[in-house]
Amino acid sequence: MSNGMTVIVQPMPWLRSAAFTLSFPAGICQESADRAGIASMTCEMVQRGAGSYSSRDLVAAQDNLGLDRNSGVLTNVVSYGAAMPAESFDQALGVYADILRRPHLPADQLDDARMMMMQELRAIEDEPSHRVMRRIRQMRYGDRLGRGPQGTMKSLQTISQDDVREFFQTFYQANGAVLTVAGNVQPKQIIATAEAEFGDWKSGDKAVQYEAESCPGYDSIEMETSQTHIAFGFPCIPYGHERYFKMRAGIGILSDGMSSRLFDRVREQRGLCYTVSASCHSLPNAATVFGYAGTTPERAQETLDVTLHEVKHLVDDLQQSELDRWKVRIESALVMEQESSASRASSLASDFFQLGRPLETKALSELIEAITLKDVQEYWTENPPQDFHVVTLGPQPLTVNL
Amino acid sequence: MSNGMTVIVQPMPWLRSAAFTLSFPAGICQESADRAGIASMTCEMVQRGAGSYSSRDLVAAQDNLGLDRNSGVLTNVVSYGAAMPAESFDQALGVYADILRRPHLPADQLDDARMMMMQELRAIEDEPSHRVMRRIRQMRYGDRLGRGPQGTMKSLQTISQDDVREFFQTFYQANGAVLTVAGNVQPKQIIATAEAEFGDWKSGDKAVQYEAESCPGYDSIEMETSQTHIAFGFPCIPYGHERYFKMRAGIGILSDGMSSRLFDRVREQRGLCYTVSASCHSLPNAATVFGYAGTTPERAQETLDVTLHEVKHLVDDLQQSELDRWKVRIESALVMEQESSASRASSLASDFFQLGRPLETKALSELIEAITLKDVQEYWTENPPQDFHVVTLGPQPLTVNL
Repeated sequence: MSNGMTVIVQPMPWLRSAAFTLSFPAGICQESADRAGIASMTCEMVQRGAGSYSSRDLVAAQDNLGLDRNSGVLTNVVSYGAAMPAESFDQALGVYADILRRPHLPADQLDDARMMMMQELRAIEDEPSHRVMRRIRQMRYGDRLGRGPQGTMKSLQTISQDDVREFFQTFYQANGAVLTVAGNVQPKQIIATAEAEFGDWKSGDKAVQYEAESCPGYDSIEMETSQTHIAFGFPCIPYGHERYFKMRAGIGILSDGMSSRLFDRVREQRGLCYTVSASCHSLPNAATVFGYAGTTPERAQETLDVTLHEVKHLVDDLQQSELDRWKVRIESALVMEQESSASRASSLASDFFQLGRPLETKALSELIEAITLKDVQEYWTENPPQDFHVVTLGPQPLTVNL
Repeated sequence: MSNGMTVIVQPMPWLRSAAFTLSFPAGICQESADRAGIASMTCEMVQRGAGSYSSRDLVAAQDNLGLDRNSGVLTNVVSYGAAMPAESFDQALGVYADILRRPHLPADQLDDARMMMMQELRAIEDEPSHRVMRRIRQMRYGDRLGRGPQGTMKSLQTISQDDVREFFQTFYQANGAVLTVAGNVQPKQIIATAEAEFGDWKSGDKAVQYEAESCPGYDSIEMETSQTHIAFGFPCIPYGHERYFKMRAGIGILSDGMSSRLFDRVREQRGLCYTVSASCHSLPNAATVFGYAGTTPERAQETLDVTLHEVKHLVDDLQQSELDRWKVRIESALVMEQESSASRASSLASDFFQLGRPLETKALSELIEAITLKDVQEYWTENPPQDFHVVTLGPQPLTVNL
C-alpha cells in the first residue's frame, strides 16, 4: 500500500479457518536500556481498550468472533495475530485496526500492566532452563539484541504513561509493516478490507537496524538446582543467506528428530541426559546455532564434553541416509503446514522479514530437495563451528574443553 | 475385531495428512506402588528395537516415513500415535505392530531407559508449578490414580528386566484397545490394514478399574521460590455424564479465554497474578476441576482468597453473554479440529474411553448449542463447589478461607 505496508494473501480453500499475522518493527531492539520492557508493556496496553471498545468490551468482542489470539514481542518486530472461523475475518481485522491505531492507553491501567510484567519476570526466574537460554542470548547478541521481552524489575518500575505513549507514537506505524493472511479467503476481498482498515495508517521513519555485540566465552551461574542446565551457542549464517539451507541441513542431522546425532549419541547411547537439542536462530544481521542440555550435576561435565564433540565433528562421516531422513522430515512438516492457516500466516510473515518476500511452499520444497551431501560437507568444512558461547547453571561450574 | 480391539476411522478428504492413536489400558494405575514408573519404562523399552528393526533402525524407519510421533502414559491408558503424510499410513501401522507386539526389550538398554526417567523426574523437581499440580492430583485421587508417570527415585531403581517383561506380557494386548484414525484415508483400506496387523493380537483379561481415594484439605510445601504457586481442586462430574457439558459451561465461563471471570477479575482488574486458570479433568470413576495461580509471595494470600471466591460464587449473576461467548469459543475450536488429523484422532480415542463411543463433531456441536443459561445455573446451584483441595508452594504457607 502507498503508506509502506505490505499485504500478502495465500488462499487455502480446503480449510474453513483463516488466520492473519500483522507484524511491524516495534520490537525489543527499539527500547532504550533504561526502559527495557516497554515494547511488551505497549503491546499489553494497546489491548486494554481501543476505538469504541472499553478494555472489557475489547476482549469480549474478540472472544465473540471466536479468535484464537496470539501476540508476541520479538527482538526486531512485534506481531499481532489470530486464527478464526473464516467468516469472522473482516470484523476481526477491524478490531485490530482499533487496537493498533486507536488504543486508549488508559493511564489507570498502567500499574496493572506493570504488575503483570513483573509477575512474568519472576515466573521466569523460577525456571532455570529459561535463565540459561536468556543469558546465552545476551552473551551472543549483546544487551540490545540479546535482551528478553520482560525487561528488568528496575526498568519496569521506571516506565511511565508518557513513555508508553511515545513508544506507541514512534513505532506503531505502517512503514515496514506486513499483514499476512492465509486460509479460506478471497485475495481481492482481503486487499479491499486491508485497504479500508489500514490504507491511511500513518507512515513514519524506517526502523533503525542495530548490530549484534558478541562476547564469546564461558559463564557459570551457581545455584542449588537438582539438574545442571547447559546452554551453548556459536555463530552461523542467517535465514535468507543463499547457503542457509545447506547449513541448516547440518543442524538438522545434528538435532532434528529421535534419529538425530545428539538424541542418539548423547541421550540414547550414553544415557547422559533427558533433553538435548540444537536449533538455528536468525536476526537480520546475525544468526546463531543455540543448544541446550539438562542433566544431573554428576553427568554434566561429560554431557557438555560429548555434546560439544558432536557439534565440532558434525562433518565427520556424514551419511546420505542422515540427509535423506532430514529431507523427509521437512517435507512432512510442509504437508502439516498446509493444514494450518495460523502456521502458514506466521511463516509468510517470518519469510517477509528475513527474505524480504514470501517463499512459496513448492519453491522451498525444491530448494530442500536440491541439497546434496556434498553441499552440506562443503559448507561445514569451510565454516566449522567456532567462537563458542557456553552458560551453565547448577551447583558447580564446569570446564569447557574445546 | 474378534480379539476385543476397536477400530474407528474418520475420513477427512480435504487434508493431505493422516494420523492415528492406538490406546489401551496399560496406564499408570496398573502399576504396583513399589514399581511406580513401570508403565512409562515399558513404553520407553518397547521403542528400543522391535520386529526386524534394531533400536537405531526403528527410529530411523519412523523418521523415514515422516512421522510426527507422540506417545503418552496416562492414569488409565497408554497411547501411541503419529501424524504423517497420508501415503505413509500403511507402513507406519506396520512399524507400530512391531513395537506393540514384537518388541525386543533389550536387557542391555534397561539402565539407559532408567537413567532417562530419573533425569525426567529431576527436571520436574526443578519446576515448582509442576510440583504443586502433581501434589494436588495425589491428594484428590490418592496414590494410585493420582500418581505421575515418572515414578520415584526408589521405585525406578527397583524395576528389573523381568518386571518390564511381565508388565508388557500382561497389559500389552487387544482387549479394551482402540485404534482411531483420521485424515485423508479410505475406511475400507484402514480396516483391512488394521485387521492384517492387529487381527491376531492376543486377547487378555479386561483391565481392572480402580477407585479414587480422595483426601480434601490443605497442604503447603515451603521453598525459597520467587513466586508462590497455588493449586486447587474440587470434585465434579466426569466426561460422559449426561450433564457434563452443562457443568463444563460453568467452568468455561470461569476460565476459558481472556474475557473469562478468573482472567478478568483476578488478573486484569486486580493485577494479582500473571497466570490463573481452571479446567476439568476426567477419569472413568472420578473427575475434578483443577486450578492454578502463580503470583508473588506478597500477593499470594489475596490471590488465593479472590480466586476461591470467584469459584464459589460462579452461579451469582451469570450472564447470557458469558454463555454465548463460551459457545462461540467451542465452535471455533471445533472448526480448528477439523483441520488437524492428529487432534481428531486423539479426540476420537478420548471419546471412546470416556463415552464408550466416538462423538461426531456435529452431534457435539448440537449438544453445546442446546445448553441454556438455566441449565448452567441449575447444575451449579444443585452442585456447588465443595470438598476443596489446596496446595501452595512458596516461602510461607497461606490460610485457606472457605
